[in-house]
Amino acid sequence: MTEKCGVVGVSLAGRDAARPLYYALYALQHRGQESAGIVTHDGFQQHSHVDMGLVGEVFDESDLDVLNGSAGIGHVRYPTAGSVDSSCAQPFSVSFKSGSLGLSHNGNLVNADEIRDDLAAVGHAFTSDGDTEVIAHDLARNLLKEDLVRAVKHTMERIHGSYALTISHDETVLGVRDPLGNRPLCIGKLEDGYILASESAAIDTLDGELVRDVKPGELIVLHEDGGGFDSYQLIERDNTAHCFFEHVYFARPDSVIDETLVYEARRNLGRKLWEESGVETDVVMPVPDSGRAFASGYADAASETTADGEIRPDDEDGVEFAEGLMKNRYVGRTFIMPTQDERERAVRLKLNPIKSTIEGRTVTVIDDSIVRGTTSTQLVQLLKDCGAEEVHVRIGAPAIVAPCYMGIDMATREELIASDRTTDEIRDEIQADSLAYLSTDAVAEVLGKERIDLCLGCVTGEYPYEIEGETTDRDVTRPEIDETPLHADD
Amino acid sequence: MTEKCGVVGVSLAGRDAARPLYYALYALQHRGQESAGIVTHDGFQQHSHVDMGLVGEVFDESDLDVLNGSAGIGHVRYPTAGSVDSSCAQPFSVSFKSGSLGLSHNGNLVNADEIRDDLAAVGHAFTSDGDTEVIAHDLARNLLKEDLVRAVKHTMERIHGSYALTISHDETVLGVRDPLGNRPLCIGKLEDGYILASESAAIDTLDGELVRDVKPGELIVLHEDGGGFDSYQLIERDNTAHCFFEHVYFARPDSVIDETLVYEARRNLGRKLWEESGVETDVVMPVPDSGRAFASGYADAASETTADGEIRPDDEDGVEFAEGLMKNRYVGRTFIMPTQDERERAVRLKLNPIKSTIEGRTVTVIDDSIVRGTTSTQLVQLLKDCGAEEVHVRIGAPAIVAPCYMGIDMATREELIASDRTTDEIRDEIQADSLAYLSTDAVAEVLGKERIDLCLGCVTGEYPYEIEGETTDRDVTRPEIDETPLHADD
Amino acid sequence: MTEKCGVVGVSLAGRDAARPLYYALYALQHRGQESAGIVTHDGFQQHSHVDMGLVGEVFDESDLDVLNGSAGIGHVRYPTAGSVDSSCAQPFSVSFKSGSLGLSHNGNLVNADEIRDDLAAVGHAFTSDGDTEVIAHDLARNLLKEDLVRAVKHTMERIHGSYALTISHDETVLGVRDPLGNRPLCIGKLEDGYILASESAAIDTLDGELVRDVKPGELIVLHEDGGGFDSYQLIERDNTAHCFFEHVYFARPDSVIDETLVYEARRNLGRKLWEESGVETDVVMPVPDSGRAFASGYADAASETTADGEIRPDDEDGVEFAEGLMKNRYVGRTFIMPTQDERERAVRLKLNPIKSTIEGRTVTVIDDSIVRGTTSTQLVQLLKDCGAEEVHVRIGAPAIVAPCYMGIDMATREELIASDRTTDEIRDEIQADSLAYLSTDAVAEVLGKERIDLCLGCVTGEYPYEIEGETTDRDVTRPEIDETPLHADD
Amino acid sequence: MTEKCGVVGVSLAGRDAARPLYYALYALQHRGQESAGIVTHDGFQQHSHVDMGLVGEVFDESDLDVLNGSAGIGHVRYPTAGSVDSSCAQPFSVSFKSGSLGLSHNGNLVNADEIRDDLAAVGHAFTSDGDTEVIAHDLARNLLKEDLVRAVKHTMERIHGSYALTISHDETVLGVRDPLGNRPLCIGKLEDGYILASESAAIDTLDGELVRDVKPGELIVLHEDGGGFDSYQLIERDNTAHCFFEHVYFARPDSVIDETLVYEARRNLGRKLWEESGVETDVVMPVPDSGRAFASGYADAASETTADGEIRPDDEDGVEFAEGLMKNRYVGRTFIMPTQDERERAVRLKLNPIKSTIEGRTVTVIDDSIVRGTTSTQLVQLLKDCGAEEVHVRIGAPAIVAPCYMGIDMATREELIASDRTTDEIRDEIQADSLAYLSTDAVAEVLGKERIDLCLGCVTGEYPYEIEGETTDRDVTRPEIDETPLHADD
Repeated sequence: MTEKCGVVGVSLAGRDAARPLYYALYALQHRGQESAGIVTHDGFQQHSHVDMGLVGEVFDESDLDVLNGSAGIGHVRYPTAGSVDSSCAQPFSVSFKSGSLGLSHNGNLVNADEIRDDLAAVGHAFTSDGDTEVIAHDLARNLLKEDLVRAVKHTMERIHGSYALTISHDETVLGVRDPLGNRPLCIGKLEDGYILASESAAIDTLDGELVRDVKPGELIVLHEDGGGFDSYQLIERDNTAHCFFEHVYFARPDSVIDETLVYEARRNLGRKLWEESGVETDVVMPVPDSGRAFASGYADAASETTADGEIRPDDEDGVEFAEGLMKNRYVGRTFIMPTQDERERAVRLKLNPIKSTIEGRTVTVIDDSIVRGTTSTQLVQLLKDCGAEEVHVRIGAPAIVAPCYMGIDMATREELIASDRTTDEIRDEIQADSLAYLSTDAVAEVLGKERIDLCLGCVTGEYPYEIEGETTDRDVTRPEIDETPLHADD
Repeated sequence: MTEKCGVVGVSLAGRDAARPLYYALYALQHRGQESAGIVTHDGFQQHSHVDMGLVGEVFDESDLDVLNGSAGIGHVRYPTAGSVDSSCAQPFSVSFKSGSLGLSHNGNLVNADEIRDDLAAVGHAFTSDGDTEVIAHDLARNLLKEDLVRAVKHTMERIHGSYALTISHDETVLGVRDPLGNRPLCIGKLEDGYILASESAAIDTLDGELVRDVKPGELIVLHEDGGGFDSYQLIERDNTAHCFFEHVYFARPDSVIDETLVYEARRNLGRKLWEESGVETDVVMPVPDSGRAFASGYADAASETTADGEIRPDDEDGVEFAEGLMKNRYVGRTFIMPTQDERERAVRLKLNPIKSTIEGRTVTVIDDSIVRGTTSTQLVQLLKDCGAEEVHVRIGAPAIVAPCYMGIDMATREELIASDRTTDEIRDEIQADSLAYLSTDAVAEVLGKERIDLCLGCVTGEYPYEIEGETTDRDVTRPEIDETPLHADD
Repeated sequence: MTEKCGVVGVSLAGRDAARPLYYALYALQHRGQESAGIVTHDGFQQHSHVDMGLVGEVFDESDLDVLNGSAGIGHVRYPTAGSVDSSCAQPFSVSFKSGSLGLSHNGNLVNADEIRDDLAAVGHAFTSDGDTEVIAHDLARNLLKEDLVRAVKHTMERIHGSYALTISHDETVLGVRDPLGNRPLCIGKLEDGYILASESAAIDTLDGELVRDVKPGELIVLHEDGGGFDSYQLIERDNTAHCFFEHVYFARPDSVIDETLVYEARRNLGRKLWEESGVETDVVMPVPDSGRAFASGYADAASETTADGEIRPDDEDGVEFAEGLMKNRYVGRTFIMPTQDERERAVRLKLNPIKSTIEGRTVTVIDDSIVRGTTSTQLVQLLKDCGAEEVHVRIGAPAIVAPCYMGIDMATREELIASDRTTDEIRDEIQADSLAYLSTDAVAEVLGKERIDLCLGCVTGEYPYEIEGETTDRDVTRPEIDETPLHADD
Repeated sequence: MTEKCGVVGVSLAGRDAARPLYYALYALQHRGQESAGIVTHDGFQQHSHVDMGLVGEVFDESDLDVLNGSAGIGHVRYPTAGSVDSSCAQPFSVSFKSGSLGLSHNGNLVNADEIRDDLAAVGHAFTSDGDTEVIAHDLARNLLKEDLVRAVKHTMERIHGSYALTISHDETVLGVRDPLGNRPLCIGKLEDGYILASESAAIDTLDGELVRDVKPGELIVLHEDGGGFDSYQLIERDNTAHCFFEHVYFARPDSVIDETLVYEARRNLGRKLWEESGVETDVVMPVPDSGRAFASGYADAASETTADGEIRPDDEDGVEFAEGLMKNRYVGRTFIMPTQDERERAVRLKLNPIKSTIEGRTVTVIDDSIVRGTTSTQLVQLLKDCGAEEVHVRIGAPAIVAPCYMGIDMATREELIASDRTTDEIRDEIQADSLAYLSTDAVAEVLGKERIDLCLGCVTGEYPYEIEGETTDRDVTRPEIDETPLHADD
């Protein structure tokens, strides 16, 4: 089960955590629109409000009013295809021997079924199919016999895959990031406490300050008095496997992830795109809003050098940057799709071309990705209908050739247009005059990482985790762990 | 946590169980209006739909369509004061090592916390406060090491209190009734399968035939092919503790519970009431709908004998039976209650007296119980305002002097008008001209049981189960059980 | 357009009218469940809240809070087949030259289209298809040139058909009943004001006192200070045409309509039914709740005389009265109907027979009417399946052979089982052992009216109003009226 | 009553108009989110569906399915302060003598009360307070005595103020624009019919082609067969009074209004802004999304000339354009606003600054307007907190000093920060380092109109219509009209 989600955790000096959590979830809403939830802890009392829907739909004032306590966690969940199931909404909360536990999870375990079976073998019963419940049960079990830090360490040794977790154990709020740092998680300082969040934009929203990213394999324990946090580097690996797609597509442009501002990364990817495959056209335009930062960087680079890589002469203008496609922001969940026999193209309801920018001109359209190819095909057609003489498509990332197993719901391999087509074949399919993707090396360079420190699974087909039927890009042998038998009394 | 609920389980030859379960829950709707749910099993696939609200609100056609499988259970839950919490809605469903499990529970355990602690000590984590989850975990744990029947037996030995359970374990549907038979549960034969239900009216609704009551301490296992059922008498006790209040108040009049037709029982209790405390008045009228059957029996008896117990002479009519109070059936959940400064009495919005039946006459009003006394006070006043010369109140059951801990949510002891008042004091409080309750002996006689075979806790203050701070009416020493230590491997 | 509705109007000394109107509508909810509305007047300000749904769904506290003013009217509307249209919800409110106007209407005009055309001819535009808007426009037009009483009189002269109206004109509340008194309307005295309502039960609910019925052709004007009312007998006719079906079926049993208590009328109709067509069976049972009062009267009469009309000997018991059919009160609007291929009969979900009352016995079932015959057929079958040896059906009203055009939505002529069948044919159709209806003469006698003073259209096919394609039972020539031309300035 | 709305009308060859109207309303959703509605005509049958909410909330498939007919109109309504009243939702539909009428109105009449009184004097009754009903009644009245074109002409002579109307009269769809052309309205050709819409983006959405704007004072009658349209120039004036604010703020950037592409106009206003009041800063950033086009033009101009108006030397870069503020698109209607005692500034929940773009730099922020000033004050503070060395604010339009009476709901005069402050005072109030607005002359120049052909009321306080208590910018004497007395028969 792949999930694309946002997590948050807050510990404050005295004030209730519910409203800051609410605003933080609002800031992370782009990471998940299916369900939203908050769990707070007030002494040994645990309060929970989780429901299907947007943050603004799930909570009203009275809901927040009863979520007492200065410590808590929150979650927004992405609508994954198929199982729209309220039992998977998070945070997941349980009570057990030594107290109560809340868990918010972004990511995907590769051995959840194994652990579930192990736990079931000693009598555990599960109310959902989710990874999160598995983690919760394992952690609860460990907490019977050891302290919090050791318990988290043992759970981290057992679970494999991508995870950024915020955990509430009674009034203690924790943050954990998987040893490869696949999913983002960062720490922020608020005026009267600390916050853990998937993205720094959530910290900004609360007028807080980004302290730093949580490190791969690190456990952060927020102090209950909001006065600080402790760090435990529980697992260390030689390399990381940061998801490069967070920067390309998923994260907010105003977030800083692994020390890189997403907006700046996108502009630089756009600059690289010009350098690698720039084409001189009358105008360059973004697909709004996803392509805007790429297009801006692309156009900037184009004003400096020509498509051939020469310094552009002073008397040349370079490529004009213009907003040639207008987005209808109201096309939403309840939209009635056009029927087959209606002539209007669906894409035009969402994106309307500005004819005067396009007619009789050569056009470059910039976007962040092509997934199934349907929208691109319609878009190229639309621009040609508006009188574009040529339509060139440039993508600010490598072609997606394989699925993501780590927490971003893209599509199945069969649905991916690039899984079995060359770039030329895709160009023909979408009927563009030219098409180019960015190279993976350019991605690594812009993000300032070695290739091996990124998860490039979806663009190379080689994964940093062990996935059945797929190849890996590194040694994924699980470390031997001194696994004590699963008895409570030892 | 006290719960007043309805449970059902169905196993059919081929047909999906969802719709029969739906109609059965409709027939049991009077047992709980807070939430409703159905769990079905289709091979190893478990389908669940549970939500807050009435049966008709919780399910629509499309919900039933996806509840595939010829085996399943259902539940309706009573709105208990306070915790309106969707996490307590049932059936409770879990998956565990040897399959999936669904549970519907009517009743109340007295040692749920103990068992919860035991299970937590070996690592179990709980998502709700409910008894039902505790039973599910215990049963799941037992199923790791033994077969279904033994597992149920061991769970029955561990849990104490009242319970009628329907359980689905993959495609097997079970029914269990606690050793004292406190809550009702019966077996019915459908054309193409078998059904377990809290009340026989649910069987009738499906055109089925009542086979018999599930016996106290008995486990019923429905055959997966709908062709029959097996019985296991897992626990035996010398005496039962059937809830007499099911007959008086809670059950549908058209249900047969423990071999007695509820309607007939109420008529006979009404007859007894005349014999014990009949008063000659111009008219006898029921409080609709609860008092109707009692009043009918009372009036019938009155036509045969006089209040003094003599055969009524042929030229005397006895007491006239009339519907003198009309009920407004639309006063429901969303009703805006009158404010203090409004003169209208709340009771009149629900019950309107027919003046011509009342004016200038002596009146006997029959009901099944007086709980807090507020309604009775208003009612007597209302009748006097309508010109009743005398108002006599007769109650078809003994006075409720203590709370129910077994699954019927009445009120706290402080709220019960009879907990610290004599009948004369209550009569004065409600300003009736006379007041009489039925004796407990009469109840036992009408139900054809020994007193010791009934649970009379709420009318005697002596309970058949061990309840902290209360006295018991029998030996409630828990049997020694050969409790194997809670390890999975033994 | 036929409508079955409830109307109310209230004028109080100082207090806001909204809450009394709300409770009155609750008391009239049985007259219409499709929509509900209240209009109040506060000086020249008119407040309106009208919506689809039950009273309890349409209004919450905050809705009532803004309905300021001590004068107002209310309406509940019956769900008529087909046009579920919010534009027909009432009260209808308009503002015009001399102020604002609110109208609640129960009934049906026969010349609405004519008047609509007349008004349209001078420029009136209409927002709905309803009769009510036509009345409002006509009245508004008259008010331009004459005082309130004269204006109402002229409107009454123009409109033909059945109508009980409550009208608010600024802070003045009026009540009008059509010259034949077809629909009911009565006046009540509240502690601090006066009320007009379709039924006296609404007055009772507010602890008020029924003053009297509004007379056919009478206008009642409530004093704005709540201190009294004026009466204007604007139109007089030789005969009335009271709807007898209000007593048989539609009205609450606790209402007094045209000086007859509905409950008492039904009991007496039941007595007559025994006298006319009594059959000696082991048991007589009502179809709940509609047949209860009839059955009670029928059984009473049967205890006095034999089916042959002889005084019953002292040693004979007569017919036993018993509740042999139990109603499931939860089968409501959202109920999912059984599919064709499900065996369960729909009727059994609503009505469950008590076997012990029926098995091996001869049974008489009493109801108020047979409309389409489907339910009766199923019911007879159900009773026979339960072991009834004979099933005799007795109906407390004449057979419905023709549609109602006056405000009660029954069915089309084709759907009425009795429109083209003799009683014997119907008996065969529903497979009863015998069937009898009450005679129209018995109805007239019980209601204490001449036949000509009742509307018997639906049971005779002869109507008191002029209806295209139907015959009439009296002279329906419209009186010549000195109709001044429709100019504002004359 | 001021209203900011979108209107549309469609006439097709054969196909139902409902879905095209639905998509057109989606394209106009930015013009009104309070209510939405469609009225269609199918022969003499009129179908209407109007409700509160967004287009996507108001309509589902089944609603569209019953809106039969190849002709129809639609409306979206802007949420105006206060009266959220479903009775004002449009289209307004009525039936009258010669057929049915539907009206969608964008604008505001200045003499609605007068006409209402006149109509009331001859007996008209009104169900709402709206201008639209007044126009409908007047038009309906005229249609009694004259043909459609004459009727519209007479109504246009009577009503004064701003209006763009789409009207359906049975199967004929009309469009009317007021004689000064204040509100926009244009004609489009679809494959199988014609469309009238507030903005051309609605035409694009249906793959249609913009034909031209409806001229001020012109009536367009679409042919019922979808094959063309007729034009009637019913009223002519020397000057127009186009609302310049449509271009600045209200319309979609991809719409062409009065022959100017809104996006292009905004870019050019931005260019002018640089020319008039450019300031050299490190970076220029838009307030998204409203300031984006202005900022883009401003930055473009800055790359060509310096702030002093000199040609910029080749070795100078000019002002960097960057997206330094990120918008949270999820902050919507159900958002819980921060409490006073929460530190977070509300603006930051909607707009998050990108620190790296701002810190240590001088910043120019571009927006389209300052209304109350609150947001601007918070924004300047936010940028300074992020380390901006200087914050300069540039507004792409003149200062709003007076309310709009013509159909755009801004604020009351008291709320407008510029109504009683000089630009310097506003600068101090919002604590910017500098502040400049665009001149009205620049607006006129960019839009290619004489000042007298624009409505500049909100920026000059002089209006093109007669408004009580305000001055006018032209002769607003109402022309003498040969007003025939309001009798139907003349």
